[in-house]
This record gives sequence, C-alpha cells and structure tokens, in this order.
Amino acid sequence: MNQHPNYLLNKISGPTDLKKLSLTQLQQLAKEIRTLIIEKDTALGGHLGPDLGIVEATIAYHYVFNAPKDKIIWDVSHQSYPHKMLTGRAQAWLDPEHYQDVGPYTDPEESPYDYFAIGHTSTSIALATGMAKARDLLGGHENIMALIGDGAMTGGLAFEGFNNAAREKGNLVIVVNDNQWSIDKNVGGLVTALKKLRASNGTSPENPFTAMGFDYRYVADGNSLEAMIAAFKAVKNIDHPVVLHINTLKGKGFAPALKDEEHYHWASADLLSGKTSNKTKADANSVAIDVLKDEITAGQKIMAINAAIPANFSLDEIKINYPENYLDVGIAEQDSIAVAAGFAKEGGIPVLFENASFLQRAFDQLSHDVAANNLPVVMMVGRSGISNQPKTHLGLFDQVLLSNLPNWLYLAPTTLAEEKAMMHWAIRQRQRPVAIKMPAQAVPEDNLTGTLTDYSEINYQVKPGKKVAVLALGDFYPLGQEAASQLGATLVNPLSANILDKKTLAQLAQTHQLIITLEDDVLDGGFGQKIASYLGKSAVKVLNYGQKRVYTDQTPLDQLYKENHLTVPQIIADTQQVLK
Amino acid sequence: MNQHPNYLLNKISGPTDLKKLSLTQLQQLAKEIRTLIIEKDTALGGHLGPDLGIVEATIAYHYVFNAPKDKIIWDVSHQSYPHKMLTGRAQAWLDPEHYQDVGPYTDPEESPYDYFAIGHTSTSIALATGMAKARDLLGGHENIMALIGDGAMTGGLAFEGFNNAAREKGNLVIVVNDNQWSIDKNVGGLVTALKKLRASNGTSPENPFTAMGFDYRYVADGNSLEAMIAAFKAVKNIDHPVVLHINTLKGKGFAPALKDEEHYHWASADLLSGKTSNKTKADANSVAIDVLKDEITAGQKIMAINAAIPANFSLDEIKINYPENYLDVGIAEQDSIAVAAGFAKEGGIPVLFENASFLQRAFDQLSHDVAANNLPVVMMVGRSGISNQPKTHLGLFDQVLLSNLPNWLYLAPTTLAEEKAMMHWAIRQRQRPVAIKMPAQAVPEDNLTGTLTDYSEINYQVKPGKKVAVLALGDFYPLGQEAASQLGATLVNPLSANILDKKTLAQLAQTHQLIITLEDDVLDGGFGQKIASYLGKSAVKVLNYGQKRVYTDQTPLDQLYKENHLTVPQIIADTQQVLK
Repeated sequence: MNQHPNYLLNKISGPTDLKKLSLTQLQQLAKEIRTLIIEKDTALGGHLGPDLGIVEATIAYHYVFNAPKDKIIWDVSHQSYPHKMLTGRAQAWLDPEHYQDVGPYTDPEESPYDYFAIGHTSTSIALATGMAKARDLLGGHENIMALIGDGAMTGGLAFEGFNNAAREKGNLVIVVNDNQWSIDKNVGGLVTALKKLRASNGTSPENPFTAMGFDYRYVADGNSLEAMIAAFKAVKNIDHPVVLHINTLKGKGFAPALKDEEHYHWASADLLSGKTSNKTKADANSVAIDVLKDEITAGQKIMAINAAIPANFSLDEIKINYPENYLDVGIAEQDSIAVAAGFAKEGGIPVLFENASFLQRAFDQLSHDVAANNLPVVMMVGRSGISNQPKTHLGLFDQVLLSNLPNWLYLAPTTLAEEKAMMHWAIRQRQRPVAIKMPAQAVPEDNLTGTLTDYSEINYQVKPGKKVAVLALGDFYPLGQEAASQLGATLVNPLSANILDKKTLAQLAQTHQLIITLEDDVLDGGFGQKIASYLGKSAVKVLNYGQKRVYTDQTPLDQLYKENHLTVPQIIADTQQVLK
Repeated sequence: MNQHPNYLLNKISGPTDLKKLSLTQLQQLAKEIRTLIIEKDTALGGHLGPDLGIVEATIAYHYVFNAPKDKIIWDVSHQSYPHKMLTGRAQAWLDPEHYQDVGPYTDPEESPYDYFAIGHTSTSIALATGMAKARDLLGGHENIMALIGDGAMTGGLAFEGFNNAAREKGNLVIVVNDNQWSIDKNVGGLVTALKKLRASNGTSPENPFTAMGFDYRYVADGNSLEAMIAAFKAVKNIDHPVVLHINTLKGKGFAPALKDEEHYHWASADLLSGKTSNKTKADANSVAIDVLKDEITAGQKIMAINAAIPANFSLDEIKINYPENYLDVGIAEQDSIAVAAGFAKEGGIPVLFENASFLQRAFDQLSHDVAANNLPVVMMVGRSGISNQPKTHLGLFDQVLLSNLPNWLYLAPTTLAEEKAMMHWAIRQRQRPVAIKMPAQAVPEDNLTGTLTDYSEINYQVKPGKKVAVLALGDFYPLGQEAASQLGATLVNPLSANILDKKTLAQLAQTHQLIITLEDDVLDGGFGQKIASYLGKSAVKVLNYGQKRVYTDQTPLDQLYKENHLTVPQIIADTQQVLK
C-alpha cells in the first residue's frame, strides 16, 4: 500500500508534470524524495549517499530539459533513484509492495528515460560523446548530457572521454558532480585540482577543463534548486561542449552518512535500522586479512592494493593499522594492476584485492604488465561466479580473463583453510603471478580437502569412487561432494581453474566412463572446457557444469542453479542419461 | 661486419663510458645514433620517428643518471633504440650481421637496463609509481622515471597513472615527451592543453599538471643536449613527483619523416629505400574499405571509428574522402568502444576497426557498454591469431575476449568474398553486436565457400567426406581443406568462432569417428574447446588445433605452426593415432 498518499510525488508521472510546479513545490518534492530514499534503503538496503546528494540536480534537470528526447547519462547510475522517481517509477519507493519493481541501476528495459544499463564507473562521457556524434550525423538537435562524480573521474576512461568530448562540434554538457568522495575518500591529483577550483569559486586559472578547451561553469551549491535550475537553463541548447562543475553534499539530509560516507555509500538495511550483526565467524575476507597481518608482521614487504573498494574486502583494518602497507588507487583497475607489476619488479610483494566484475577493465594489464613479464603478483579475486547481482555487476568472467593467459596460476580453494594455505604460499613464492578465487559461496572452514605448503605443482586431490569422477572446483566442492556421494563416484579437488593435472586426468579417463566438471562461473572459456578439450581424444565422456553464456539480472541463485542443472538431482539424472 | 669502426659509439659499452665524454663528443654521438637508426630501418624496417626525436634526451639521461640502479620506464618502448645503443647493444645497429640480435621493444631478458617488456602505450607512469612505492617501502633511494609521449597520454591509464603519481611522497620524475603526434596526428583536449603550455614557454597557469599538485618544469628544446642535461641535473634526486615537459621533434634528422609523420612512425625498408610496391591485389583491408564506401554512398549513417591506427586498416581513404564518417579517438580503446555504443544507441551505425592486440584494453566496454546493452555495434578485428610478432604485440586473445561474452556474434570469414558478405550483413542488421575476424593469413579472394546475405543464424557449410570431419575456422580454411582432402574427410566452414551450429554438430558426431577443429588463435577459451565441451557427452572424439597458451616472441610462423601441429602431415599423423 502507498505509504504516502498525500505526497506531491504521487502527481508526478513524468518530467512534464514537474514543469508545472512552483519552486516551493519543487523543494517539497526534494524533501519527499529524500525521505523515500532513506525509508526504502532502511527496509531493503541500497545506494544512499550518492542519491541523497543528487536530489536537487535531478529535479532541476527534469524541470529544465525535455527527457526522454533530451538525454542524460548517469555515470554508474547508482545515483538514479531520484531520476527514477521523477520518470514514472515513484511507486517503487512509495509502496513497499512495489519496492522490487525497479532495479538499482538505469536500464532501458525498465524505462524509456534510461538509455543504457550501466553499473561500472567512468563510461558516461564516452557514451554521451558517441550519442552526440550520431545526433550530429543524423541531423538531430536534442541536448545530450553526461553526469559524472569526482570519484568516477579517477578511472582512465573518464579522461579518454573528456579528451574526445572536447572536440565535439555540437551540444554536449558534462556535469562534474563533485562531492569529494569516491566510494571511500577520493584520492589523487584530481582531488587537488578540484579543490583549487572549489576554493576559488571556480575562478582558478589552474583549470584542467579550460586547459583542454572546454567552456566551464561552476555552481558552488549544487544542492540549491534555484542555482541548479539557473545553471541548467544557461547551458540548455548550448552549441558546444561545456563542463558544469557542481559542488554537492553526498549523503545530504542523513546525518550518519555525512559523518561516515564510505559506510553509507551503499547501506544495508541492518546498518540503517541500527541492528548490529555479531559477526565473529571466519569468512573469505577475514582469512585474507589474517594472512596479510601475519605476513606483514613476519617482515614481508607487502602492499595491499585495491581500487576504491576497501570495504568489499574488509581492508579497513590494514588501512588503519598498517598504512605503509596499504594503497587505494581510486577507481582505476588498470592502474592498480600496473602499479602492482612495478611494485613486484622492484622487489616488493603486491597483494591485489579485485572484484571479479571490475577486474574486467584490466585485462591488458593482467596480460602485458604482469603475465608477459611473469612478475610474482598476488591477486585475491572477490565476488566471482554465479550470483543474483544485476547484469552490470556479474562477476562471471574472471576465469575468462585469468585462466586463458599464459603464466598466471589461478587457484580455487575449497575451504577457508585452503584459502589460507594458498595465500601464504602465493605471498612467499617469487616464480609467477598467482590469483586466488575467493570462495563466494559458503565453504567449510576446516581442513576438509587437505592443505599444502606448496602449490607450485598442481596435483589433484582424489577420493576414489567408481565409474564417474566429479571434478568440483573451488566453492562448488560441497556440491560435488554431495553428488559424488550419491553416485558413489570419485571426488576430485582440482585446486586450480586453469592448470590441469594431466597425469591424474589421464588416469581418471582410463578408469572412469564419465568425467563431470563443476565450476562457479560462466562455462565458456572456463575450467570444464579445458578438461573436455584435453580429454577429447580419449574414450571417456565429459559433462561440463557452470553457467550458460547469458547476462542474468538479479535472478535468484536457486533459479540460476536449476537453469544450469547445478543441483544434485539434475546432475544425477544427466549422469544416468549419459551412462545408459 | 661493423660498418662504422670509427664511430665513437664503439667505445660506449654502457652509461659509465658516456659520462667521460665532452659536449662535442656527445653531439657527435647523437649524429651517429641518428645515422644508425636510419641505416638499419632502411635495411629492415622499424620504428623511426619516435627514435629520431628522443636521441638527445636519451643521451642526456644516461649522462646524468646512473642506470641500471636509477630506472627509466620508456612508455611503449618504441623509442628505445638510442637507449639500447647506449646500454651495450650498439652492435645490433653497427653490424648488419647482428641487426636481429635485439628486439624492437625493451625486454628484461635482453638487458638489465630494461625493466619491463612493454609494447602497449600508457603504462609507464603506473609501472614507475609501483616501483617508487616498493623503493620507499624497501628503503631504497634510486631515481625512478617514466617517459611518456603526448600520444600515449590519450590512453586513460596514463591519466590514472598521473592521478596516483601525484601522491607519491618520494622521488618520481615523469617526462612528458611532447612531439605533437600520436601515431597519426594527436587528437583531443589534451592537445589544446599542451599547446597552451608550449606557447607560453611552460608558464601558462592553465596547467593540468600543477593543477594536480605536480612540480612542473618545461624544456622548450628537448633536442638540445645542453638543455636536456641541465633539466635532468635539476630533477636528479628530487624528493617529490615532478613533471618534466619537453618539446621534441619527432623524426628529427630525416626530412621525409618531418613531412609525413604518420607514415614514418614505423617505416618499412621499402618505404625508406624508395621502392614502391605496386599493390593492386585485394586484401582484408581493401575489402573492408570498399564495403564502407558502398554503404556510406548508399546512405547508411556510418562512423568508422579507430583508436589512433588508421594506417593499419588503410582508413586514410575514409578519413580524407568521408570526414563526416570518420573518427579517430586517439590511443583510447575503451573510449572507442563506448563511443561506438553511444553512437549505435542514438541510431547510427558504428564500424570499429580494432587491432586484436590493443583490443585487450577494452574488455569491460565489449561486455558492459556493448554486449549487456545488446547494441548493434560492428567491429572489424585486425591482426588476430598466431603470428611472428614480439610478445607485446601478439593478437592471440581476441577470441578469449569476444567469444566468451553473451550477445556478441564473432564471424570468421574464410575468403575475401565472405568477409565482404559478412560485413554488408553486419552493417545492415540491427539485432546484436557483430565482430568480424579479418583474415590475417592469405585467403582466397573468390567465393570458395559460398556467401550468404544473412548470417543471423549459423548453419555450417559442409562438404561431405568420411570418418573424420575437419572444422576449419576463418583463415585456417585452406589448411583444413588440404588436410580434409588428404584424409578424404568431411570439410566444414563453421562461419563463427563462438556460435555453434548444434544441429549439424550432432549429425557430424553421429556419422564420424573424429572431429578436428582448426583455429588461428590461442586454444584456451577458444572455438575448439567449445566444440569439445558440447560433444563431451557423445562418443565422437575431438582434436583441437590452435596455439598453446604461451607468449611467443618473434618466432617464425612456420616454427609456430610446427610446434602446434598445425601442418597437414602432423594433423594426418595425429588422426591416424587417434583412429587406430
């Protein structure tokens, strides 16, 4: 049921309705939108700070411009809740029964006011530039705008976008939403440059935007509706590229967020409702942090490197207690990997913490800077595999990226004890780059599969059975264990997603009728296909289990598992079919 | 035999020898180095302009600093010939019999004065920052320098590098080698910014480097030995990050290069010796250009987009005759793909021209901006597959990148006629992103395999034979044809590197004992492994042929083919082994 039937927002079915309102009414709308963001996030969790900060700019945008003909690209689109509320989707905040109707990011399948499915940073300027080029060639005249935060500007693609946007001959507005935050506190030379502009009310001649040839405007209070309406009116239908630099307050209207922006960038329902979880159980993160602390204390010259997502890996403990051993490069995955390569070359031990989804930006560095130079970089890969994430945040392609490159060893622990052993070994070896696929699904804490002190050679761990051998990679080991148990099959811990134990495989092929592979990732370019190829010339049959090559979008895990036959009954039925 | 026994260079076995020379002698050395660059390039081909422009800076560097303890990272390292001559490798220019002794890029396996194998742009600042961080943590005190050209600075990773280098607490020198050229003429807002600095002799307050907090120095004549020695002395042992902006003349000392820098960035022996090749035969490039011209003339709203390498695709004709339909985004592959996504979304038809090797930078855009949004981007992929290139320029991973993503259709033509038909169809369809793997090896011009007007469904083209079926992808079709002929085998044109014709595959599996796949790429994550996986549950055996997962380094093609059993006799022998 609509919790706020008296809200003005109920009367806004699109930007046209907005244009009829007075300034006082628009201000009322801003209050309502803030209340709704906090209410829904408190119930469900969601992005908080970015949305609270952009309320006035969003209202002003839709008041001044004519979407969807005029187009705005929201960078990352984690600040698009107010935009969604003003473009026909307010019910998804007003009525808890409809909370799930809209996704967390822009999505053309959800609304004609959204132009792209976006979830990674730094793409908006390039996308807008491409749209502007097409508009020019096709003879259109609409306004095209990209809105990008100062955090997203630490990603190199944003700079590539600026560099080419500066050449546009027609209308193009780039709003720099400067809230002085990345996900954590923003970093680097860019921070200095923006600070000088803010301190001078936009008048400092040390202006990287005018240096590149952009027209430039500054709005000191980007949370003032009047100021934002005036600023947008001034750039509407402009015939050249302009940078509109607005100073906004991330988390505006929610006191706790203003004090601790990192934790309120994306806020869980528990955090907002004040529930504290007594988290004492070990998990993939706590294991990694413990290893880091042990090795730093033991004198290893470690640098824990991440690209603006320390909270994803519980890295705050390292950041606070071992500042010399901690580096956040901003949202700049390419840089993080290349910095790690340089650090390793000079004799240090870089330990990267990368999310599978964001790692996609750095393939060339994984290949050239690290692998072609065979440098002993250690990389912990988080949130990889099949998940209920939106299609912009799937971590499905980590094996595609890492497993198919020379020199990389990609290890996949089946227990927390094995993760620990692998990480200790990876830090102390100096032979090659090693990545560790952190368990994304629950795995046993104890030493179920046996740990080693040396993983330089991959020797499969085999529990003998009959007819069928189940190779269960990483966090799918418990699934494999259950399937093997019911089938009376051989159970194998293959240890690595990309290095095969060919000797054991040949033996298994001779003594079994069917080899089953299980992996928590997309099947294409992955572990199972390597096994199938290697065994292609032998008589043994092979069944590969993993996810089909599709983008899923917040699909529940159990549904994904069923669709991909990743359940014990389905595996057994398939096996019986092949063996009959 | 040494062609210049009287050269001063003969007495330089390393930087130490250089330090004893007078300015006049250093100037003599500069002349000798220039002569040698031109001599060897005239015989063999090689990078020309970048090396001619950097002679004085290189001499000054080694005169002032103490390599290999002090470290310099040459961005791309295509300007490292003078560096190589001064660090013990002059014989490879003095004596034609030793021309092949050194590679075209820096390589730690070649010399302790080279720190990384580098061949792609924009990485040097990040690598140097990583080294500086490790030096600081390990308690070292050497000088660390990155030298990067203005062309390489259009790549976003360069900006990510600057952003983080600005935070370094110790010594770090970034030399911006501003020669006003990318491979083609440099583009974008950065050009404007550097121009303002040059015009003001480095004094303009519109300085993006000081804006980011860098100390900044300018050298108006970077080809003056005295000026460069003084500049390097002034920054040696500096205790903070500094940008040293030097204005140099690309191609200095070779008149034709100064007139036409694009063609003399990398110069062939024929170009330099004045031989003209009467190239009239059609090839993969000319076919693509013809299709572009046809479709533009027919009124299609096309934008031919490339990232600073028009010459690689013979795009000059489009650039000159159809300027409205041509876009060079600079060395910015991420931007090129995202711009194409925006262009397609707005109704235009983007046709990307990407080298397989450089495409590696843009995986996230291939996935998110294009595939997750399922936009009808057309992409021509050049120079993919097994090659005799240096390990930094291998185009082995295009199938890894493209074939494992949802929505992309990756087509692989077997003839030039098929390339033409596929490209026409790709431009006119609006259903999905389509990439075309341009033949890198010679393929027949004529209509050997039959062309279609619609490639939206993949139906294998089958020439029936017995026992064995050879699936020969793209430019390996002639190899497959020969093998199938000798084996009396079925020959299949599979058309696509990533979409399987499962119906035909199932039929082939039932009627054959062995399926052979041939692909011009790395095996891992590729075409054959998908076939092996799909056929894993059937009784048919499968042999996958392609390149093993290793970096090769200027290895001759025939040797690579032999090592990977990609010859007809080896394929026949393997087949007999499996069938017996």
